[in-house]
Amino acid sequence: MSKRVQLTVAYDGTNYCGWQLQPDKPTIEGELNKHLSQLLNEPIQVIGASRTDAGVHALCNTAVFDTDNRMPAEKISYALNQRLPEDISIQESKEVAGDFHPRHCDSRKTYEYRITRGEFPIPTKRLYSYFTYHKLNVEQMRKAAAYLVGEHDFKSFCSVKAVVETTVRTIYTVDVEEQGTDIVIRVCGNGFLYNMVRIIAGTLLEVGKGSLLPEQIKAILDGQDRQLAGPTAPAHGLMLVKYEFFPERSLETLEK
Amino acid sequence: MSKRVQLTVAYDGTNYCGWQLQPDKPTIEGELNKHLSQLLNEPIQVIGASRTDAGVHALCNTAVFDTDNRMPAEKISYALNQRLPEDISIQESKEVAGDFHPRHCDSRKTYEYRITRGEFPIPTKRLYSYFTYHKLNVEQMRKAAAYLVGEHDFKSFCSVKAVVETTVRTIYTVDVEEQGTDIVIRVCGNGFLYNMVRIIAGTLLEVGKGSLLPEQIKAILDGQDRQLAGPTAPAHGLMLVKYEFFPERSLETLEK
Repeated sequence: MSKRVQLTVAYDGTNYCGWQLQPDKPTIEGELNKHLSQLLNEPIQVIGASRTDAGVHALCNTAVFDTDNRMPAEKISYALNQRLPEDISIQESKEVAGDFHPRHCDSRKTYEYRITRGEFPIPTKRLYSYFTYHKLNVEQMRKAAAYLVGEHDFKSFCSVKAVVETTVRTIYTVDVEEQGTDIVIRVCGNGFLYNMVRIIAGTLLEVGKGSLLPEQIKAILDGQDRQLAGPTAPAHGLMLVKYEFFPERSLETLEK
Repeated sequence: MSKRVQLTVAYDGTNYCGWQLQPDKPTIEGELNKHLSQLLNEPIQVIGASRTDAGVHALCNTAVFDTDNRMPAEKISYALNQRLPEDISIQESKEVAGDFHPRHCDSRKTYEYRITRGEFPIPTKRLYSYFTYHKLNVEQMRKAAAYLVGEHDFKSFCSVKAVVETTVRTIYTVDVEEQGTDIVIRVCGNGFLYNMVRIIAGTLLEVGKGSLLPEQIKAILDGQDRQLAGPTAPAHGLMLVKYEFFPERSLETLEK
């Protein structure tokens, strides 16, 4: 009797070429497929919720797979963690409805982009925070962030190589929080385009440095041109921190 | 004209066999000597303040050295950071009195030992925090910590292989702070014996788990026997976070 199992997956993306399976390269999906197949003694292919880029971290990415193995779903986390490398860790495993698909249902994701300010980099932060020696005006960054909230066409905040049906997304909140010498940009939305959070972070950094004014964000959105927004901030500052699913509100797939 | 230069050194200890020079092994001292000698074009040997163990991290360890090179002391940080690997970073360089010795003057050091609680480890914390799935009673840990404050003979909190003239030290404060799922044990004192902070952390962990009572700390101190205290907590949870020197209050060396 086959069942569908949902995994909550935390990882340090430093040593991986991202989530998505690539031949002969270390990926989170590849590690999960390999170790699940060995554990459950059948070929397993997971479906990931968020296909994070190389170097991006996660506290709670999500994967589902189907298995005929009779191991109780909630025990799989314990058994799989025995096999996974220490930079990947299953936080929870549970049985879900057979038609649950993490990319085909309504969801809300929260990402954090972390910036560390200082004169020199701090080695123990180098893997999980973007270092800058620039002074940053946090109040201006907050004003700029407010323009991003709501339903907008985020074409200007999407890497051009992405192929999607629509570039309209809804951002519920963007917080710019100071934590000592760190600044955390926390973005919550119903979905994100390719590189969207990193481009938002890169654009807010330009605002913080004074190279852009908060009011220019509106024109950047309206212009629908990637060239108008700031650079794509480096991957290692980004972490997927929260993923909420609303399976009862099923959707057409947003991404091709 | 020779001058003495003081460096404030931050590092990620993960990939080093500790501070102290060892032949054919990567050490912080070894890296500093090598890159300073190349930069200043003369053989340099630094004197370290705290000879941290393998795997221990620092925001602000201190080293001094003498040089005949005419490069201004405050520029050395910039030039040296260009050469050092990214897991070591000089936070400041400055000229100090020719007789300043970081281990022969009065000082106050602050260490933090970080613990992360949860059902499963979080990969992005694994290098800088000790993971435990135990429930910990933080109030009991705070009560136990209070017994350590003051001038005591810390022989029970010192690894037996250490050779020191006296095992009496003064602890000014021990804070046990909750930060979400993390617990940070912050210890400030005038000096620490070999493994002392890690044994304090290991002992407070035993109290948190309920294996020791706070009141037993007094008996452990009085017993002057390493066997009475808890285990030495793993190195990677420990970070040297603050180092203050009082060169005007010069001391006889505490350690052989």
